[in-house]
Amino acid sequence: MTKPGLLLLDPRMERLLDGALADRFDFVRLWEAADADALLAERGEGVVAALANSFDAKLLERLPNLRLIAVPGTGYDRIAVGPARQRGVTVANAGDVHSRDVADHAVAMLLASVHRLPELHDWVLTGSWSGKGYPRFRTAMSGHRFGIVGLGNIGAAIAHRLDPFGGEIAWWGPREKDAPWPRRDSLHDLARWCSVLVVAARGDAVRQIDADVIAAVGAKGLIVNISRGAVIDEEALISALKDGRLGAAALDVFEDEPTPPERWKGVPSVLLSPHIAGASVQSVGRLRDAAIRNLSTALDGGPVVNEVTA
Amino acid sequence: MTKPGLLLLDPRMERLLDGALADRFDFVRLWEAADADALLAERGEGVVAALANSFDAKLLERLPNLRLIAVPGTGYDRIAVGPARQRGVTVANAGDVHSRDVADHAVAMLLASVHRLPELHDWVLTGSWSGKGYPRFRTAMSGHRFGIVGLGNIGAAIAHRLDPFGGEIAWWGPREKDAPWPRRDSLHDLARWCSVLVVAARGDAVRQIDADVIAAVGAKGLIVNISRGAVIDEEALISALKDGRLGAAALDVFEDEPTPPERWKGVPSVLLSPHIAGASVQSVGRLRDAAIRNLSTALDGGPVVNEVTA
Repeated sequence: MTKPGLLLLDPRMERLLDGALADRFDFVRLWEAADADALLAERGEGVVAALANSFDAKLLERLPNLRLIAVPGTGYDRIAVGPARQRGVTVANAGDVHSRDVADHAVAMLLASVHRLPELHDWVLTGSWSGKGYPRFRTAMSGHRFGIVGLGNIGAAIAHRLDPFGGEIAWWGPREKDAPWPRRDSLHDLARWCSVLVVAARGDAVRQIDADVIAAVGAKGLIVNISRGAVIDEEALISALKDGRLGAAALDVFEDEPTPPERWKGVPSVLLSPHIAGASVQSVGRLRDAAIRNLSTALDGGPVVNEVTA
Repeated sequence: MTKPGLLLLDPRMERLLDGALADRFDFVRLWEAADADALLAERGEGVVAALANSFDAKLLERLPNLRLIAVPGTGYDRIAVGPARQRGVTVANAGDVHSRDVADHAVAMLLASVHRLPELHDWVLTGSWSGKGYPRFRTAMSGHRFGIVGLGNIGAAIAHRLDPFGGEIAWWGPREKDAPWPRRDSLHDLARWCSVLVVAARGDAVRQIDADVIAAVGAKGLIVNISRGAVIDEEALISALKDGRLGAAALDVFEDEPTPPERWKGVPSVLLSPHIAGASVQSVGRLRDAAIRNLSTALDGGPVVNEVTA
């Protein structure tokens, strides 16, 4: 007898399971198929659950017996939640497993950029220290104004981490919140006010950080993005960096991922990381546990944890 | 009439003054002289004050009318304070102008190392993200144990900054202190306990971080040093990094400064900066103000601020 099918969208999904659930499901590995259509035609009917970071309505149509989509992460902006729920398919994410990790990474990238650590490292290793003395001095952290876009779990965790450094902190988000830091009147107001703009907005705030916001952060300003690539107009960001209209950027997320390396050739003052802010050993363990627990409910019934409803 | 002489030990001293005091003193620029002995023979008698980060007893002998040595910084471990005071020469440093800046830099280097930011940046730019997926995941900050050597102003400021990241914090120093973090029984005990050792000891703790302490931090451990290069046995550190007996090091200070670039060729997992932890625009302004105020007392009398007595 064949086991029920579990659709895995890319190899990271199988790597995350790390051997678990192979006894209960037949894995349907979408990335391995030379012809994905043919694979779905042959095995789509047997699939009852999926593990995926992105899932569109078209794929949904190919899986008539799908009961559950488990998202191994917090963001579900690339999941067709509406169409799935209309069909009676449950969507569940991993809840807030890694907002602290993401906040850690945001602050790490922010500090490395403000302190220009890559430049200093090169300064020592290329002999500039003996040849040219010191590079220009940085602005002290206490002399900065940190503007946080989006004061959800991640944004608030970033603010808490920045607090002891002594700079000013403010935020903006579409909804008023009870917080120890002042909310600015608008995103543009925040961007004009701050020296460092930290983007912790929701993934559906597409192109919220547009050319105008980037211009408001300005030639001495830094933008840090750990939310979603689509939240920033990446072309406008690159152009502003090249022209010196934006001081620097630290990016963990990109419009296309993996971002093509050639896109960043000749772009000055960027610090990049491969969408890895939330990926600590500890949080990946929690993601795995949540995925296994939720996928098991597709067979055993019982309550799903962290069902996504909108 | 000639003005009284101000001895400047290196070009950074004149750069720091940035035009100030040129109307009141004749600058005696020691680094410009082809023959320093000849310069001192000719002009040493006229020197009444000096601005210097290092000053030995031999130099003191050449300046019979010296009244004041102003140190533009906090550390005075390379100043012959005892011989100077015996001669009636006042030594004054800049007080605690930059412990917050140094703490900022320590935490910046620590986070960049724990999050492996240089590796991640290369990972994106060399195409490994599309070719190889993700590098190994980091340990979350909350899973680390931070051991701080020396809980003076700088060490305490580092601990306060690390607090919101949620890891464990402990410290060791020769004297018990009233602090919210536990003191370990010994330096070796702290080194064995921690995953990250942050060295914020006094500059006179020469070779306190020896091969045994380095071994205790171990193959998965990180050492951050923002105190003085002499506090670590640098040969032992380099050898441990090369053999994988120490996981990583982030260093702002070195046995010889500027450190020769060739010394670090082939040494893995290091992040280096050119003794610049305390140098923000703001703190350099405060250093300059303190130096000008204290050097003026050599002419006008009045109290010296931050006299060094030991």
